[in-house]
Amino acid sequence: MQRDEPNSRVVALAGGVGGAKLAHGIALARSGEHLSVVVNTADDFTLFGLHISPDLDTVMYTLAGLANPETGWGIAGDSFVTLDMIKGYDRDTWFWLGDKDFATHILRTERLRSGATLTDVTVELAEALGITAQLLPMCDEPVATLVETPDGLLEFQDYFVRRQHADDVLGVQFEGIGATTIPERVSDAVDDANIMVLCPSNPIVSTGPILAIPGLRDRLRQLTMPIVAVSPIIGGQALKGPADQMLATLGHEVSAAGVAELYKDFLTGMVIDSQDAHLAERITDLGIAVHVADTIMRTDDDRRVLAEETLIFAESLIVKPELA
Amino acid sequence: MQRDEPNSRVVALAGGVGGAKLAHGIALARSGEHLSVVVNTADDFTLFGLHISPDLDTVMYTLAGLANPETGWGIAGDSFVTLDMIKGYDRDTWFWLGDKDFATHILRTERLRSGATLTDVTVELAEALGITAQLLPMCDEPVATLVETPDGLLEFQDYFVRRQHADDVLGVQFEGIGATTIPERVSDAVDDANIMVLCPSNPIVSTGPILAIPGLRDRLRQLTMPIVAVSPIIGGQALKGPADQMLATLGHEVSAAGVAELYKDFLTGMVIDSQDAHLAERITDLGIAVHVADTIMRTDDDRRVLAEETLIFAESLIVKPELA
Repeated sequence: MQRDEPNSRVVALAGGVGGAKLAHGIALARSGEHLSVVVNTADDFTLFGLHISPDLDTVMYTLAGLANPETGWGIAGDSFVTLDMIKGYDRDTWFWLGDKDFATHILRTERLRSGATLTDVTVELAEALGITAQLLPMCDEPVATLVETPDGLLEFQDYFVRRQHADDVLGVQFEGIGATTIPERVSDAVDDANIMVLCPSNPIVSTGPILAIPGLRDRLRQLTMPIVAVSPIIGGQALKGPADQMLATLGHEVSAAGVAELYKDFLTGMVIDSQDAHLAERITDLGIAVHVADTIMRTDDDRRVLAEETLIFAESLIVKPELA
Repeated sequence: MQRDEPNSRVVALAGGVGGAKLAHGIALARSGEHLSVVVNTADDFTLFGLHISPDLDTVMYTLAGLANPETGWGIAGDSFVTLDMIKGYDRDTWFWLGDKDFATHILRTERLRSGATLTDVTVELAEALGITAQLLPMCDEPVATLVETPDGLLEFQDYFVRRQHADDVLGVQFEGIGATTIPERVSDAVDDANIMVLCPSNPIVSTGPILAIPGLRDRLRQLTMPIVAVSPIIGGQALKGPADQMLATLGHEVSAAGVAELYKDFLTGMVIDSQDAHLAERITDLGIAVHVADTIMRTDDDRRVLAEETLIFAESLIVKPELA
């Protein structure tokens, strides 16, 4: 099969740390100018009156080369003077916010309150940081992931950060999702792209909300461009976060094949890790092409290489007009 | 004349740095528990979507022992990481805000947006910092000082900080003052006090707005307790800020006597600096008792001593029932 032009136009769907790494890899492998990253905002919440968008921030800081390599989130070398002072005012500081990070939340909140959409603000902040990729929230309306646990319904950051995702997840709800619409810039990015990549993000609470935006999943089913996912599950485990526990308690198989099942109605191809090569046949049986690669991204170079492999694989799946 | 009980109940009116120092001195000389400080809020403004109350913050940090001794405003040893990052987002950072300071603005804004009054928030923040004095904004409604200059009408912080009070002041307006009311806590503090102190603050733009709250000046005229001012003008100059220039361009005499003229309808006594002793007779001719003291406050001890002298002087002016 013939390889397509080297600068494919890519639209990537991403959650937090894993998604940010692959999105960064795509920007490194090709060019940010031909990349749009659509990011989960169902984890967004308000703290100290500020609008926090954890996944958008993680992707933005990662694309800007500012991310903290130790944590994956936050800004490298950030200090915590403001948060310490907030604690000095007898407030509970359970969510870690650095001083540089506060600048993001302050300016985002200011612009939202003055009537800007989250899309407007996100584009402005990313441009100011010199990011060439188009960074987009999945929608402009508020959505809130709620997690059903044996202890009751929890707000996402309460479950995820405060309780350190220790609770069994019996179900998830995306409050407000019914009122969301696909933003025009997201729609245009999908129209313009010739490849869609589902980054290795939690299929339940990261890509899950994006796919739950009314009309989006139907649109994906009808796309003719290849839609390729990189599995967030490697050897039966998530590298980071609770995706593996969640899949298990929600009754899904905790494997790349289990994730493929969740996406099989629209997915064209899947990149799975070398240690999961034995699952390839089960995934191809779902009508999904498989590419096996080393998918653990420890360094920037790992990101670039995995992105390059993913794009070449996806490009190989582009249906040529003469073959269509 | 007999000295009154050592713990007089004091209500002080204050603006920024000079007012904060004397208020702190009163708390050091006696006890914060018998002190209420009513602070100018006509300099308040919104920056990056945050409600900034410069004078309240200066008095609060000073009373909490946190103030930066170099500047008089801001918090000692504060860093500027958040502001640097805001600059990194291509925003104009003309107003100096430290990281600790941001905590104050963030929490104040959060509480105001959730419906709290500025009085509520101020009391909460001050209590959290362990301040025993009652810190009160002059009112809960928004007031904005506008400065008339040859270049037109300027917002106060634009005139004061950005343009470094270099413009001639031809007039001042307190936008919104007509809709303000004396807050209940301020009213109660005045009722409870047996001494009122006008701190050495700018008579035009610091005590000016407080005295312009409808009904307040009339109330002061009717009070039987002594009202004592410490002159903010020493040897024809303001120690800090543009009070001297303002008095001049507005046609007032730039001296303690000029300030006494502005307060003569309600003032009982005035503390003037040793170098202004020659003005004493002119001030007493206005029906205002005079006490001469060293009024420059360089150290915490200077504040305490000046406060003690001011209180003893004020106590000497308390009209005893048998003499009334």
